[in-house]
Amino acid sequence: MFGPFWGTEDAGGFIYAMPEILCRQDTFPVYRYNRINGKEKEKTMAKEKKLVESITSREEDFAQWYTDVVREAKLCNYSSVKGCLIYEPNGYAIWENVQKDLDARFKETGVENVYLPLLIPENLLQKEKDHVEGFAPEVAWVTHGGMEPLQERMCIRPTSETLFCDYWSKTVQSYRDLPKVWNQWNSVLRWEKTTRPFLRSREFLWQEGHTIHATYEEAEQRTLTMLQVYRAFVEEDLAIPLLTGRKTDSEKFAGAEDTYTIEAMMHDGKALQSGTSHFFGSGFADAFEIKYLDKDNQLKSVYETSWGLSTRIIGAIIMVHGDDSGIVLPPRIAPVQVRVIPVAQHKEGVLEKANELLSALKAAGYRADIDMTEKSPGWKFSEQEIVGIPTRIEIGPKDIGKNQVVVVRRDTREKIVVSLDEITDRLNGILETMQKEMYDRAKVYRDERIYEATTMDEMIDLAQNKPGFIKAMWCGCEECEKQIKEMTGGVTSRCIPEEQQHLSDTCVCCGKPARSMVYWGKAY
Amino acid sequence: MFGPFWGTEDAGGFIYAMPEILCRQDTFPVYRYNRINGKEKEKTMAKEKKLVESITSREEDFAQWYTDVVREAKLCNYSSVKGCLIYEPNGYAIWENVQKDLDARFKETGVENVYLPLLIPENLLQKEKDHVEGFAPEVAWVTHGGMEPLQERMCIRPTSETLFCDYWSKTVQSYRDLPKVWNQWNSVLRWEKTTRPFLRSREFLWQEGHTIHATYEEAEQRTLTMLQVYRAFVEEDLAIPLLTGRKTDSEKFAGAEDTYTIEAMMHDGKALQSGTSHFFGSGFADAFEIKYLDKDNQLKSVYETSWGLSTRIIGAIIMVHGDDSGIVLPPRIAPVQVRVIPVAQHKEGVLEKANELLSALKAAGYRADIDMTEKSPGWKFSEQEIVGIPTRIEIGPKDIGKNQVVVVRRDTREKIVVSLDEITDRLNGILETMQKEMYDRAKVYRDERIYEATTMDEMIDLAQNKPGFIKAMWCGCEECEKQIKEMTGGVTSRCIPEEQQHLSDTCVCCGKPARSMVYWGKAY
Repeated sequence: MFGPFWGTEDAGGFIYAMPEILCRQDTFPVYRYNRINGKEKEKTMAKEKKLVESITSREEDFAQWYTDVVREAKLCNYSSVKGCLIYEPNGYAIWENVQKDLDARFKETGVENVYLPLLIPENLLQKEKDHVEGFAPEVAWVTHGGMEPLQERMCIRPTSETLFCDYWSKTVQSYRDLPKVWNQWNSVLRWEKTTRPFLRSREFLWQEGHTIHATYEEAEQRTLTMLQVYRAFVEEDLAIPLLTGRKTDSEKFAGAEDTYTIEAMMHDGKALQSGTSHFFGSGFADAFEIKYLDKDNQLKSVYETSWGLSTRIIGAIIMVHGDDSGIVLPPRIAPVQVRVIPVAQHKEGVLEKANELLSALKAAGYRADIDMTEKSPGWKFSEQEIVGIPTRIEIGPKDIGKNQVVVVRRDTREKIVVSLDEITDRLNGILETMQKEMYDRAKVYRDERIYEATTMDEMIDLAQNKPGFIKAMWCGCEECEKQIKEMTGGVTSRCIPEEQQHLSDTCVCCGKPARSMVYWGKAY
Repeated sequence: MFGPFWGTEDAGGFIYAMPEILCRQDTFPVYRYNRINGKEKEKTMAKEKKLVESITSREEDFAQWYTDVVREAKLCNYSSVKGCLIYEPNGYAIWENVQKDLDARFKETGVENVYLPLLIPENLLQKEKDHVEGFAPEVAWVTHGGMEPLQERMCIRPTSETLFCDYWSKTVQSYRDLPKVWNQWNSVLRWEKTTRPFLRSREFLWQEGHTIHATYEEAEQRTLTMLQVYRAFVEEDLAIPLLTGRKTDSEKFAGAEDTYTIEAMMHDGKALQSGTSHFFGSGFADAFEIKYLDKDNQLKSVYETSWGLSTRIIGAIIMVHGDDSGIVLPPRIAPVQVRVIPVAQHKEGVLEKANELLSALKAAGYRADIDMTEKSPGWKFSEQEIVGIPTRIEIGPKDIGKNQVVVVRRDTREKIVVSLDEITDRLNGILETMQKEMYDRAKVYRDERIYEATTMDEMIDLAQNKPGFIKAMWCGCEECEKQIKEMTGGVTSRCIPEEQQHLSDTCVCCGKPARSMVYWGKAY
């Protein structure tokens, strides 16, 4: 019954095309459902055409596609403040769900939320040498408060290690005060030169966790635990497959002993560092003199970690799952999981039934909404697809007559006819299947784009011709990283994975004995 | 069985005093349960004594009591950044619940969450005359970004009307784009001279809602709707009775046509303005040129509102419900609603049973925790009381033998013996009763402290001798407000309530014809 050009007699006998085709050519349905005057009709048609054509094809120009979908899905926008974004309702709602899901995972591991000040006095920022070198060039400075110049200028936090350490140095005294496992959801500011929605902006939203522990081992364990929390969250809730591992020294966080990372491959084969977990040893603790009296009456240093994940991750969702019709949200993170779209809604009983369905879906715990506007069904379908709502339920007079609805999956466009009596039970299975298949597809896509190189010639060839990641052996020296970056036009080390493979005996670059296998790639 | 000096044979035959008495004199139980060495024992005793005596009596010195409970309950602390607070886990957890409950209420009325930048370019702040006059003297200025001086300095947002208006002026075009009903949860910064935990600090956390509408009436309605949302939230979830009404011109928000407020009475009789809802008419819209093309093809101004509630509200919870043993959290907002405290936990089976109980409570949906530390029961009770957990469940070998537990209410200290089989069912009723009685008690307390004045002599006498609010008639002129403030040592108008009473024909101050009845009081 539902072929590629399935007909809905419900829509007054008019056969309209599948959304994908509609998106390219067909604005006809507008005529059938538009109930405003002629002038408005023209405007709407022009607008629909605009909506339809406003997204550049992914294969044609990936960067432009990204900008287009962010704009058309109304996720965020540029503000009058250079380099700072407006997170619009559709974009912020995704972040709210990220917060909710990730925060619950944090709390399961004993994390407590706090809030520390926005401002950092200059002397605090300067206490840890590597840290200040890393961040001082990119902070914004407050020099006046009210009408008065400040005695000491303060920067807007680019990250808050210094504030947490300063506070703990004043309040932690005994082993009984340990560990502290704190986190805050906030915004930070770094004076970036170039900005892109979600991926890089001067101010961005994130969470930053900071912990101190009595022992080296406990702190190291926390670093790795949080890496696994990120991994589970991103893979399970966002359906994004990850590579995880340790960063090389040159890619480490300023002041860290070790930085662990989760790395995702975008549709264009580039990497997005999607979250990091840092182990500081007692470097910061010593700089800030955080000592505790242990059970043996000895004063000892604490060991510290920090870990963060930001609104960048929304960029990853877009660039892993999106298509030429817009974004595709994994059901578990989608602010709206299902949209009810009445077809031929002017016909008697349709809106009532559609609203009944909406209530039933909500009562069953789905995040659901309805599009009852005067727009054409085709227009409504396009909108639902652009904003990436995982499923829509089409319901028209014929459907109602047969006591059924049509569920359409956003990712595959698969149409599933479901009895109205069973829809609240069956939708969950459809969403879970979609979630799983989105992950599987992304994983296949990524795995097909992980290559191996044992010589620089191979590496350069891959970098130029095969978008994706490259596995290659490395001697451990920074000089080789630099050279690889230069010779390949920007390929950097992404991580040293825990699961090592022995590809060859020697470094891909210098030919000296290899120390580890590294994932390499161009990165956002 | 449970008199004022109820015994727990479970605690090894030792009879310990009720917590209130314990808090004053008794540190003896420490000896019985402390299992560490002699030196540690002494330390613990000294510490318990410190804990016990560290809260000044409310009646003796209310301001000191407030500072003491904030510190001892570990809600927040001062930071190295002058005037900025550290929100510690116990304090931030309350704010998280405020956010959760209030945000759900917002969303029921169609509010969408967004996030706008932290920085405001100076030219934007200056667009609305009254607004800039009100805020420019108390903002912090960013003058350098990275290593470079900025071409135009920017302030850290003291509030974000200007940013919302600027964005809408660029994006709103037609009546179809209206209304916008947006809100953000964020921090703002105002360069205050004096600061007090939660009540006044340079940086504070809040939500700020901003809306624009096609008509005057719709905007006015939104202003009043949000006032009612605040009222319902604070009265129902925080158990704080409110007076609501309109602010006089001198107490209005900078740039508003009308400001509506919710006002609560603290234990010392002073008022705390706990949330405000502003109606702007089209003042900001005109300053920022936010115009939309209406259905009739005319360009029209939008009408605007904004509304906010901040971490101040935590100060209200403390000062309305707290007592000499610490804070008392209303069950609906409490991060932990019930704490299981095992008594004689070293005896066989006690910890197992206590943990079983904890699991059952959590499974039933209660926010529950357990105190399994080596501290004495008396110490644990004191701690639970200081942090204001609404109920504790005491469970010891004798209780277990009788298949029962003892629930103790934080507010009344009432002890309720409940069968272990029924505890998960019955606790909810206990918490709901407590919530209701907390509100009722606070309302009686407040109503007993609302006085009437028809002459200045009465007003001055009340201001000096009767902490509380004063109802008095007012002519509507600012001069009288100033004079009242001077003559009474700081009494200001709190609000003009919707429900008016006719107390006399003339203004309490100047004797000219009265226009409205006003609530007056000293305020935080």
